[in-house]
Amino acid sequence: MKKFLAAALLAATSPLAAQTIPSPEQIGALRDSAMDGDHYAWDITEGLTTEVGQRLAGTEAETRGRDWAVKKLTAMGFSNVRVEPFDMPVWTRGAESATILAPFPQKMVVAALGNSASTGPAGVTGEIVAFDSVDALRAAPDSAVKGKIVFIDHQMMPTQSGIGYGQFGAPRRQGPTVASKKGALAIVVRSIGTDHHRNPHAGVMTFNDGATPIPAGALSIPDAEQMARILKRGKPVTMHLVLVSQNIGTRQSGNVIAEVPGRDPSLPPILVGGHLDSWDLGTGAIDDASGVAIAAAAAKRIMDAGRPLRTIRIVWFGAEEVGLFGGLDYRAKHGKEPHYALLESDFGADRIWKVDSKLGDARKPEAEAIGNALAPLGIVTGSFTEAEGSDIGPMLADGLPGVGLSQDGTRYFDYHHTPDDTLDKIDPAQLRQNVAAWTAVLAVLSGGIEEPKRSKRR
Amino acid sequence: MKKFLAAALLAATSPLAAQTIPSPEQIGALRDSAMDGDHYAWDITEGLTTEVGQRLAGTEAETRGRDWAVKKLTAMGFSNVRVEPFDMPVWTRGAESATILAPFPQKMVVAALGNSASTGPAGVTGEIVAFDSVDALRAAPDSAVKGKIVFIDHQMMPTQSGIGYGQFGAPRRQGPTVASKKGALAIVVRSIGTDHHRNPHAGVMTFNDGATPIPAGALSIPDAEQMARILKRGKPVTMHLVLVSQNIGTRQSGNVIAEVPGRDPSLPPILVGGHLDSWDLGTGAIDDASGVAIAAAAAKRIMDAGRPLRTIRIVWFGAEEVGLFGGLDYRAKHGKEPHYALLESDFGADRIWKVDSKLGDARKPEAEAIGNALAPLGIVTGSFTEAEGSDIGPMLADGLPGVGLSQDGTRYFDYHHTPDDTLDKIDPAQLRQNVAAWTAVLAVLSGGIEEPKRSKRR
Repeated sequence: MKKFLAAALLAATSPLAAQTIPSPEQIGALRDSAMDGDHYAWDITEGLTTEVGQRLAGTEAETRGRDWAVKKLTAMGFSNVRVEPFDMPVWTRGAESATILAPFPQKMVVAALGNSASTGPAGVTGEIVAFDSVDALRAAPDSAVKGKIVFIDHQMMPTQSGIGYGQFGAPRRQGPTVASKKGALAIVVRSIGTDHHRNPHAGVMTFNDGATPIPAGALSIPDAEQMARILKRGKPVTMHLVLVSQNIGTRQSGNVIAEVPGRDPSLPPILVGGHLDSWDLGTGAIDDASGVAIAAAAAKRIMDAGRPLRTIRIVWFGAEEVGLFGGLDYRAKHGKEPHYALLESDFGADRIWKVDSKLGDARKPEAEAIGNALAPLGIVTGSFTEAEGSDIGPMLADGLPGVGLSQDGTRYFDYHHTPDDTLDKIDPAQLRQNVAAWTAVLAVLSGGIEEPKRSKRR
Repeated sequence: MKKFLAAALLAATSPLAAQTIPSPEQIGALRDSAMDGDHYAWDITEGLTTEVGQRLAGTEAETRGRDWAVKKLTAMGFSNVRVEPFDMPVWTRGAESATILAPFPQKMVVAALGNSASTGPAGVTGEIVAFDSVDALRAAPDSAVKGKIVFIDHQMMPTQSGIGYGQFGAPRRQGPTVASKKGALAIVVRSIGTDHHRNPHAGVMTFNDGATPIPAGALSIPDAEQMARILKRGKPVTMHLVLVSQNIGTRQSGNVIAEVPGRDPSLPPILVGGHLDSWDLGTGAIDDASGVAIAAAAAKRIMDAGRPLRTIRIVWFGAEEVGLFGGLDYRAKHGKEPHYALLESDFGADRIWKVDSKLGDARKPEAEAIGNALAPLGIVTGSFTEAEGSDIGPMLADGLPGVGLSQDGTRYFDYHHTPDDTLDKIDPAQLRQNVAAWTAVLAVLSGGIEEPKRSKRR
């Protein structure tokens, strides 16, 4: 007991300074118990993907997701379960098809990119002009592009860290703006992904620099490769493209928040999160039902073990996919309040292989304790000066402390933003490893977990 | 030269009796050269899937496939290239969707089964009644099924031989008839497949025993598993199903035939084939562009080496998928003529691991020579009394001799009849092993290959 009091006193005087860390034995026991038998994360992932399905930001499906979340987090025994709503502009998908008319008539599989303009139900027809990168498109004279349908190819390869998503995502993120400014009729890109299935990868893009929105879609990877083979024949290729997208105006989204109250509510909380919304093609299992599930499961396991010194705040962010609206809303409302650490899980649920942290020099012992607690799970300690996350990214950039747990992303971009992001892609054993790692991190940061007093028996 | 003459004389007097077999050295050289560098099979597979795409039987796409085939086989130097046309009833796919309305609204991925009735554009809505097998559906009282949408689940696992397709294909083949006779509104089955992608597996079925056609579709496997999870919640599940299929009447299909003329045209030919048509969702790479490619590539390699004693007849059958129309038409026209052996490749292009034959006791030396010629490719010798094939199946059952080369089917049913049956699923190295095996078999059966006379140089 003394240990917990000491930690509380220390924390009260200097909330962001070093605090007492639970014993390696206590942390190890919590970690191993999660590894052996956690079912909370599976229950949430299975429940959310089955009972809600896809959760496109700002739509009634995301609203159902929030309702489900409030009910679930309440049933799990968390406190202060609430929704913090915010408004946002909403884009929705409609009918879509891509048909090669000449020289070799055939249908291709396409999905509109988020914020694509509509072709109208009748579609548009144009000649394909192909580039192997955004830079090549940029370098082309406008006359080569004007009135045509731009096709951008690329070769994204799987990586463990997912590093390729930045570079190879450029055709999706910047391609539409560049194509529009050169007068293109429309653009289709090779899906930003690493699979070979007829499932296109959706994803958001925005038209910048005053570019007029044009229809913009992603071909599935086998279709993009087929396009490359057809183009290689050297004959003009014409495509009929239908992308009936719609901007439906301002709608409500929201962040769902729940807490494990700390013994000292005056202390800055630990934020653990993921995002509740998903793209609309799959059921958002790896992106990001498993993320919200891992965060809540770890918090629940700490709560089951006793009362942490400081509050653990679960945040299931809304509207991440379409522009970090939830993260930015939380930041606007709470970003100036002190937080002890920010953590977000948004890279699937395959095995965590690396931990990074940005807790500051004074808290090096905590960062080291995290490394020691995770090593038995095969997790290597990376940086002490970096952490990342999507919704929490802007707040980390603001200087708030954080911890980052990196999942193995080797197969993440096989499913990312596709119809294939479904529950069967979650490996229950690896999901438990995630929960074990998160539980260990929360235990280290908790300030000490006080076991519940036994009720007196009469 | 003497050897070839002897074989010709022997064959002429007793066309189906034992004949001279080329030397193991000659056979091995032909085999190894195919293994090292065959490009014919890849060229055909790539060309047909790229320049024609899907080739649904009886449609203009299959006609384009035949035109392509005639042009390609002629360009490769084969003789007697021709189409043998036949008429057939044609079914086509239209708009299709499956939406769960309650208790958890969401879209599922569905494809109509061949010969499905149409729901009409407005679709039908009904409560789901689920069974885990056709037998369970059969055992159910009509009252439990009447007016409902039947869902049949199953658990097909991958096998090397593909043996599960017979048993686990029953929901697709027999389910619709049984459901119809019990008064079901419609039926959806778990796709007959072994993958976990949002790609439904099409396939043919027929309504038998006077059953009235009803709408019949296949859910993708992740969707079927989602359905099972939803049903497990115990609440009534209602689905809105749209399958706008159409019987468009009698159209023309055809078999494309080409030959490597034998030195003795009076001898029964060796038939090597595959089927030119495909399902309409993918580009029919594994089913069966690679099959027609392997058959033609092996024949071409024999032709390149010299003149075989007996004719090698390539048959690219039409309309296999929808009911063996091509195979039955060939049988009606040529099934009474003697054939030296029938061979068909219709199980993808992964590595061949087994050879079976049914050549009769008198030709055991040929069967053994085939086994010996294939062993260096890692191919095991199976039966001497069995061979199989789809289009050639009825003629084999009639008693014609044949050889069967079994591809590894472990991943075949991941792609079979889905949008995912595309060129990227073909492994060029394994495709070459197929050509090497087929070339070796044709060499053994050839009656001897006479090397071309060198032209005299002046």
